Amino acid sequence: MNIDQANADAVGRMISTRPMLTGVATARDVIPGMRERLLLHAGPPIEWQRMSGPLRGAVIGALLFEGLAADETEATALAESGEIDFEPCHHHASVGPMAGVISASMAVYVIEADPKGSDGARRAFSNLNEGYGKVLRYGAFAPEVLDKLRWMNRVMAPLVGSALEALGGIDVRALVAEALHMGDEGHNRNKAGSLLFAKHLAPAVAEAEGERADAAEVIRFLGDNALSVLNPVMAACKAMADAAHGVEGSTLVTAMARNGTDFGIRVSGLGDEWFTAPAATPDGLYFSGFTAADANPDIGDSTITETAGIGAFAMAAAPAIVTFVSGTPRDALDATLEMYDITVAEHQQFTIPQLDFRGTPVGIDLRKVVEFGVTPRVNTGIAHREAGVGQVGAGLVRPPVEIFQRALEAFAQKYEL
Amino acid sequence: MNIDQANADAVGRMISTRPMLTGVATARDVIPGMRERLLLHAGPPIEWQRMSGPLRGAVIGALLFEGLAADETEATALAESGEIDFEPCHHHASVGPMAGVISASMAVYVIEADPKGSDGARRAFSNLNEGYGKVLRYGAFAPEVLDKLRWMNRVMAPLVGSALEALGGIDVRALVAEALHMGDEGHNRNKAGSLLFAKHLAPAVAEAEGERADAAEVIRFLGDNALSVLNPVMAACKAMADAAHGVEGSTLVTAMARNGTDFGIRVSGLGDEWFTAPAATPDGLYFSGFTAADANPDIGDSTITETAGIGAFAMAAAPAIVTFVSGTPRDALDATLEMYDITVAEHQQFTIPQLDFRGTPVGIDLRKVVEFGVTPRVNTGIAHREAGVGQVGAGLVRPPVEIFQRALEAFAQKYEL
Repeated sequence: MNIDQANADAVGRMISTRPMLTGVATARDVIPGMRERLLLHAGPPIEWQRMSGPLRGAVIGALLFEGLAADETEATALAESGEIDFEPCHHHASVGPMAGVISASMAVYVIEADPKGSDGARRAFSNLNEGYGKVLRYGAFAPEVLDKLRWMNRVMAPLVGSALEALGGIDVRALVAEALHMGDEGHNRNKAGSLLFAKHLAPAVAEAEGERADAAEVIRFLGDNALSVLNPVMAACKAMADAAHGVEGSTLVTAMARNGTDFGIRVSGLGDEWFTAPAATPDGLYFSGFTAADANPDIGDSTITETAGIGAFAMAAAPAIVTFVSGTPRDALDATLEMYDITVAEHQQFTIPQLDFRGTPVGIDLRKVVEFGVTPRVNTGIAHREAGVGQVGAGLVRPPVEIFQRALEAFAQKYEL
Repeated sequence: MNIDQANADAVGRMISTRPMLTGVATARDVIPGMRERLLLHAGPPIEWQRMSGPLRGAVIGALLFEGLAADETEATALAESGEIDFEPCHHHASVGPMAGVISASMAVYVIEADPKGSDGARRAFSNLNEGYGKVLRYGAFAPEVLDKLRWMNRVMAPLVGSALEALGGIDVRALVAEALHMGDEGHNRNKAGSLLFAKHLAPAVAEAEGERADAAEVIRFLGDNALSVLNPVMAACKAMADAAHGVEGSTLVTAMARNGTDFGIRVSGLGDEWFTAPAATPDGLYFSGFTAADANPDIGDSTITETAGIGAFAMAAAPAIVTFVSGTPRDALDATLEMYDITVAEHQQFTIPQLDFRGTPVGIDLRKVVEFGVTPRVNTGIAHREAGVGQVGAGLVRPPVEIFQRALEAFAQKYEL
């Protein structure tokens, strides 16, 4: 068996996938297997009892949002009752930042990879980014959190959806490539990408049917939220990573995700099995009034960006990010350089001006991670450990090395190496 | 006499000036000394006979736009007749990119520096950026060029003006500072700055009175033109440089400008005198079908950006620009590093992530330029040498060293050194 060849095949599929953001729809209408009383969440599978504070908070918020509970007490009781199913976003072609909770009524972005390709469209989904302050993805569920989600469903989703229709979609891969030349890394710094996203949408939103004040508010929200594009970028990365999944004999990592308790990975040649271990707590900078004691362990599906060769892997392109996550511009450069050691290719679309337009390191090879003892780097937001509080900082984290070791053992066993 | 102290005073004024973009108005209503039959142009003073092709083309276009001539032949005859006055933008608190031609009816941006300061507002002006393709600033004057100028006057100017009013103005210095962290250098690469500019304006334009299709078109034009913000940035730099002008005993360069024939500079302690010499032709990359033989000598007031410590002086922040102007990211870094040798300060507002957030080199000292034989670096567009053609490339250029030598001699004479 030629593992190198299998990995080259897998990473080639990842790189050549061209995800288009084609629309906005309601989760129940488009996400495979989505149903009432099912909540999707970030990371590998987890039951209510083991969920961390921010994930529980987001679950409570989603149950309130769906009208399945009237208050926190009812929502908690319902979540504990076993009448609600919890499944990973990743099991439903979806990804969500931080808690990553998606419920049936929520508006979601629709990504179609190579929609005109002859081998059939590959779709991926993510929820809409809520911006800053008290937000569901950080486990907040106060009335203003739910009000914003309702506004996003009622006002923002139709306007953005009709704008995307008018535009014929947005090429997210091209957008990310451009943003990497503008100081973004595509995960924790999406300032330029979000401005590009807002720029594409704004004229069409301004012209869409509806109240002018609503159009103005949506345009303002898209432009002022430097994470507007994070969710479609994540869904695009999910489509790229999924394209690399399921290649027989490949040791490529095709998913990294955290639920706030466990960090899990999946491997191209190992089917749908998750390899998990307790998630670490990020090292980083804390907002005024918070310390590491407030931090929840690492959470979110946003590590799909690193899986697809951006995020911390492209940090050399984003020196200004260190004001947010700690470190120096040299550290940012070194982060990318180190990742070349554990990847199998350099991206053809995503390039880094600071490294003479070298392609980003892409395609994490399980074997290299274990051999060199170098785990993938991740840029991330930091959630408060208690439900309902929100973001307390941003920083850097790595997955536990033992999940790569166990995955490699499983690989050796499956392929009788 | 303490020249160092005078320079410190002058550069301090430059750095501490905070230019706000407060509105859009008609040139004749706001530019000091603006009148019918006066055309402002880029660079030092020049008469029709010595004007280069692109400047002549822009003059012809402006005369057609003003309705002072019916066709090219009439416009040329009128320009030759002596009935039209030609004066530098710089003599009227204004700046314009490339040909920089501003006529009485044109819409202009209004910059007010420290508008709430007790020492009175310092105002500066620039025309509206026309985007790409056939444009007046590159000397084109075809019907579609004039149609676009009319659209800018009739549709864009009122919408952007009322948006600026609704916003209470835009802090251009803060915008540039942010853009430098997003891969811009503020002169030849204004991609991020233009997106930030469009982001600020778009919601207010969407809500302004008028046709929705017009609002959408203006939002689209602002967002798609990666030079949208160049003109207000230039006017902001003009306000900053003017604040440093007129300091007794200062050798600081407070204007660098080219009219397509001559490169001229002004010096803080030397009043309104221009020191000029023939402009060089930029080294750079040419658009398909063009070569250096097509290039006009260096043209435009946009060197006001380098004068104020951005543009080529901030090129280290913009490694991706080398795909446009030639060279490597290392060259971009070196360009900035070299400029520290001939400047007197590091900017407190404009910082470069790639250099550990070091301030940009700011405040060109005539003495250092002459002593080290290092002339300021300039990033620039390249115009076709014939009237009516347009842009043919982009590249790098330096002013002739003799103008600095002659200015230093004049300085020694004036101050009896």
